[in-house]
Amino acid sequence: MSYCIQCGNAATRQVPPGDNLHRLVCSVCGHIHYDNPRLIVGCIAEWQGRILLCRRAIEPRLGYWTLPAGFMENGETTAQAAARETQEEAGARVAIDAAFALVSIAHINQIHLFYRGRMPSPAFAAGEESLEVALFTADEIPWRELSFRSVRLCLEAYLADRQNGHFGFHEHALAPEHESAASG
Amino acid sequence: MSYCIQCGNAATRQVPPGDNLHRLVCSVCGHIHYDNPRLIVGCIAEWQGRILLCRRAIEPRLGYWTLPAGFMENGETTAQAAARETQEEAGARVAIDAAFALVSIAHINQIHLFYRGRMPSPAFAAGEESLEVALFTADEIPWRELSFRSVRLCLEAYLADRQNGHFGFHEHALAPEHESAASG
Ligand SMILES: [Zn+2]
Ligand SMILES: [Zn+2]
Repeated sequence: MSYCIQCGNAATRQVPPGDNLHRLVCSVCGHIHYDNPRLIVGCIAEWQGRILLCRRAIEPRLGYWTLPAGFMENGETTAQAAARETQEEAGARVAIDAAFALVSIAHINQIHLFYRGRMPSPAFAAGEESLEVALFTADEIPWRELSFRSVRLCLEAYLADRQNGHFGFHEHALAPEHESAASG
Repeated sequence: MSYCIQCGNAATRQVPPGDNLHRLVCSVCGHIHYDNPRLIVGCIAEWQGRILLCRRAIEPRLGYWTLPAGFMENGETTAQAAARETQEEAGARVAIDAAFALVSIAHINQIHLFYRGRMPSPAFAAGEESLEVALFTADEIPWRELSFRSVRLCLEAYLADRQNGHFGFHEHALAPEHESAASG
């Protein structure tokens, strides 16, 4: 059972006039509740060739290493979201360069967007959602302890592009994985 | 006054524990309602050098020309959303090439993402949200009758890139405009 956010009365799933998908529609005031995919924005922040990673203090994937990233908030641009998450989760300032990778994960209604950026100094500190934060050379990246497939794809593409001397924009679509479908 | 989508009781705006932004929180069951930016995905679909535009049959900007675009839905990738919107609004099939432009419009909590694609045939037909659909050469584009600034930016970048023989990935952030802040 669901309820209308506008009036509190019962809402039911139905196809509104002119639409072709089921939505939550209020039986009293007619308000339509749209549930859309969420955008998670993150950052590959580099300091003198080393990449900033955070070890997660929260589920899912508690204890695994990740790029600073999180749900985009209202009132900000995607680049601002990337810088904010880097500040919040890794206590690090970052100068954003450009969007780098876009990963659609349709089965969990998420889009992950990663930026490239440079840290003006090697200052960082674990935020509330991180157990620890550290800078890793390409050889040091903990591939077996990464949090999410989107993070792995992003790091692989980043290191390959850096090796080639040219950063592109990368797109991926992730399907459910047998063992960790919910993890993205 | 707002209500909880889970239990129908009153919800109030407050900062949940561990958060730093105000959210709609249920006073009874504690459910937190997150309101995040929405992703609008569109497509520049080309047929033999001509670009597919739709004249809007709905507000906002009814009667103005736009690229096929719309809210991304759950369960699809961004590229699938671009192809779906092209089919729904312009009745046209399109082979998606790559993401082309990302426009953040923070003051209306929207991100516009446009893809490049090619039409396998010049078949198209106005969908329910379009008054008419047509193919335009670069010289024919109705610049004064375009719907949104993001559409204009996208078309300008596309034509410039095509002229230069290389398509990049473009990012923009749009601030409120004096006369049409709500239009994006
Ligand atoms: Zn209602
Ligand atoms: Zn509740």
